[in-house]
Amino acid sequence: MPTVKLWTDAEASANPRIQAVFDDIRATRRSDFVNNFWRALANQPDLLERTWASIKQVMIAPGALDPLTKELIYIAVSVTNNCSYCIHSHTAAARAKGMTEQQHAELLAVIGMASETNALATALQIPVDPEFSVE
Amino acid sequence: MPTVKLWTDAEASANPRIQAVFDDIRATRRSDFVNNFWRALANQPDLLERTWASIKQVMIAPGALDPLTKELIYIAVSVTNNCSYCIHSHTAAARAKGMTEQQHAELLAVIGMASETNALATALQIPVDPEFSVE
Amino acid sequence: MPTVKLWTDAEASANPRIQAVFDDIRATRRSDFVNNFWRALANQPDLLERTWASIKQVMIAPGALDPLTKELIYIAVSVTNNCSYCIHSHTAAARAKGMTEQQHAELLAVIGMASETNALATALQIPVDPEFSVE
Amino acid sequence: MPTVKLWTDAEASANPRIQAVFDDIRATRRSDFVNNFWRALANQPDLLERTWASIKQVMIAPGALDPLTKELIYIAVSVTNNCSYCIHSHTAAARAKGMTEQQHAELLAVIGMASETNALATALQIPVDPEFSVE
Amino acid sequence: MPTVKLWTDAEASANPRIQAVFDDIRATRRSDFVNNFWRALANQPDLLERTWASIKQVMIAPGALDPLTKELIYIAVSVTNNCSYCIHSHTAAARAKGMTEQQHAELLAVIGMASETNALATALQIPVDPEFSVE
Amino acid sequence: MPTVKLWTDAEASANPRIQAVFDDIRATRRSDFVNNFWRALANQPDLLERTWASIKQVMIAPGALDPLTKELIYIAVSVTNNCSYCIHSHTAAARAKGMTEQQHAELLAVIGMASETNALATALQIPVDPEFSVE
Repeated sequence: MPTVKLWTDAEASANPRIQAVFDDIRATRRSDFVNNFWRALANQPDLLERTWASIKQVMIAPGALDPLTKELIYIAVSVTNNCSYCIHSHTAAARAKGMTEQQHAELLAVIGMASETNALATALQIPVDPEFSVE
Repeated sequence: MPTVKLWTDAEASANPRIQAVFDDIRATRRSDFVNNFWRALANQPDLLERTWASIKQVMIAPGALDPLTKELIYIAVSVTNNCSYCIHSHTAAARAKGMTEQQHAELLAVIGMASETNALATALQIPVDPEFSVE
Repeated sequence: MPTVKLWTDAEASANPRIQAVFDDIRATRRSDFVNNFWRALANQPDLLERTWASIKQVMIAPGALDPLTKELIYIAVSVTNNCSYCIHSHTAAARAKGMTEQQHAELLAVIGMASETNALATALQIPVDPEFSVE
Repeated sequence: MPTVKLWTDAEASANPRIQAVFDDIRATRRSDFVNNFWRALANQPDLLERTWASIKQVMIAPGALDPLTKELIYIAVSVTNNCSYCIHSHTAAARAKGMTEQQHAELLAVIGMASETNALATALQIPVDPEFSVE
Repeated sequence: MPTVKLWTDAEASANPRIQAVFDDIRATRRSDFVNNFWRALANQPDLLERTWASIKQVMIAPGALDPLTKELIYIAVSVTNNCSYCIHSHTAAARAKGMTEQQHAELLAVIGMASETNALATALQIPVDPEFSVE
Repeated sequence: MPTVKLWTDAEASANPRIQAVFDDIRATRRSDFVNNFWRALANQPDLLERTWASIKQVMIAPGALDPLTKELIYIAVSVTNNCSYCIHSHTAAARAKGMTEQQHAELLAVIGMASETNALATALQIPVDPEFSVE
């Protein structure tokens, strides 16, 4: 149950700013599917436009990390933040970008291991070794 | 200020279980450096042995994800869990495994972006699209 | 699916301590509606009484922050803690206290922005500027 | 101890993109002080420019929420995310925008109360009342 | 909606590694019930085996903390991490190990209180008293 | 570096409400030591009084859980919330109430294990088994 309404295509077509973002999502992804995240953000055109522009810059523009690696990182953050919607959408996106079941298994193992050692290091309040200094 | 004592090499050498783990850490990493995380876990030999065995299986054994990608995922979890020690140790480990400054920059951008959209999706309580179903 | 039973009005009427809190909730809010949070806490009268007394002191008694501002802060914490129930109940409460859609949009933008910069500052382990000292 | 270097004014002056952001921070805030957050982001000009542009849109441009209210929300998120740097910088910013000690006290009380009831609602897995539906 | 398939008994019986873990879960717990957590992990035999071995060592082997106390601690972590599945499974496990309603009530009160004071201490950035030093 | 001033004994003695709480802390704990948490809350007498009254009811009054078990739960929440101050103060409190090194070791193992399985269950979005229903 969302806390805002989800915009249908008919409603979006009546608002040029929203329509423009939906059009660009479809063109960029070469798919007619606009997922609910954008339909919820459509209530807030400033936020919709800024978030989509940032996603394009961070996740879609070519860079030093390949697209699948970025999705794995996105999943890791989403799991740790416990965002159910994001876990579903980015696990699907990672699979669409080629994530194999074995890669998924290892991703989960790393997330689980990091969560455990994070808790241990925090419980023990371990001082940072000077060897880790960036200088 | 740790909540337990940190074991020195001299103290470790008096306990065969601890010494065996420290020896294996040094042999596996081909380095004499044993960082404070293991010196704190040494108070608890069961936990020390199990954690090191798991780290070897998850992070060091060959698999479907390369070692640097695993470190980037580890950093992403550690940042989201806000584990200061872990952020320092795994950022240093990623650099040792070849992470460039540009890759670090993109890692941070993805972590930041995911944190923002996680919060938005949670605030909006967006229902999961049926298209994301695994079945 | 709750982990405890939710008390009906009939059940509450058989327990004077619970009935007294439900009565006060209704009188204070000038509404017959007692939401599920209190029906779950009713399993634990000490906790029910203490929590309601605290809520009255913190959220309802007049103070230096107006009631709507307090609700916006409550939503911000609830989103960051990912409490689905609390996001729904306090978003509804904020709307009942006059939150406009534009205010909701800006609230979400601030929550998203803070989540992103929190992650960046944590990843970068930025030292606190001495200019921020309270002294 | 940061995980990246912090850019000095002298270093920033040698990079036009960084210098432009630092100049705009100073002009917008009417202050010569550029805090460490921006000096750390300077390692990553894309992220620096995008983050500053977003902060200007979200926190500084006029809107439906006043600047102090936005700072209180920012503090609430930062406390819940446990971002030490952000708690310091935004508590200082809120004071600079007029936050009184009594307002600070009430902010803390709301954050504490929300944290407690978030945990209770989560532990009890309370179902959302249909009365909270947006429809 | 899980992000992986859940293994049925029939599917498990076709994979000796998975069957062996399911058999050991049933023998150890003296129950025919294998809950969904293990049916999801079955997609990843390494992770399934390692996680079950760790659970046996940490939660089931005799030690200095009794089994019910360990379950209460598990619930406390799961609530704070907001893991809905884990809250349900470990609340049920604690009840099976004898947790009374009064103990559950006090557990919730401690979790709620800790969550509140955690937020206050973090917001106030309180320096650690030297009296708490382990040395 | 705290975000508020810490009240000295001399300052507390000039404010009857604060002095009364400090006196009661000393009498209840049979110790002259008043730790920094209370010296920071002293800026906000309402919050100071309410928090101390709640701590007395939850942590000190006799109940169904013994005092050491409550401290272990408190530590578990504080670690998961990453509250450095609270980890230090409650680890010290648990030791003062008799926590042995072996109990501390097992506490850490449970916290670590729960953190790992929480992350896995969240990543897998495992549906709750109907067997866990309270009804």
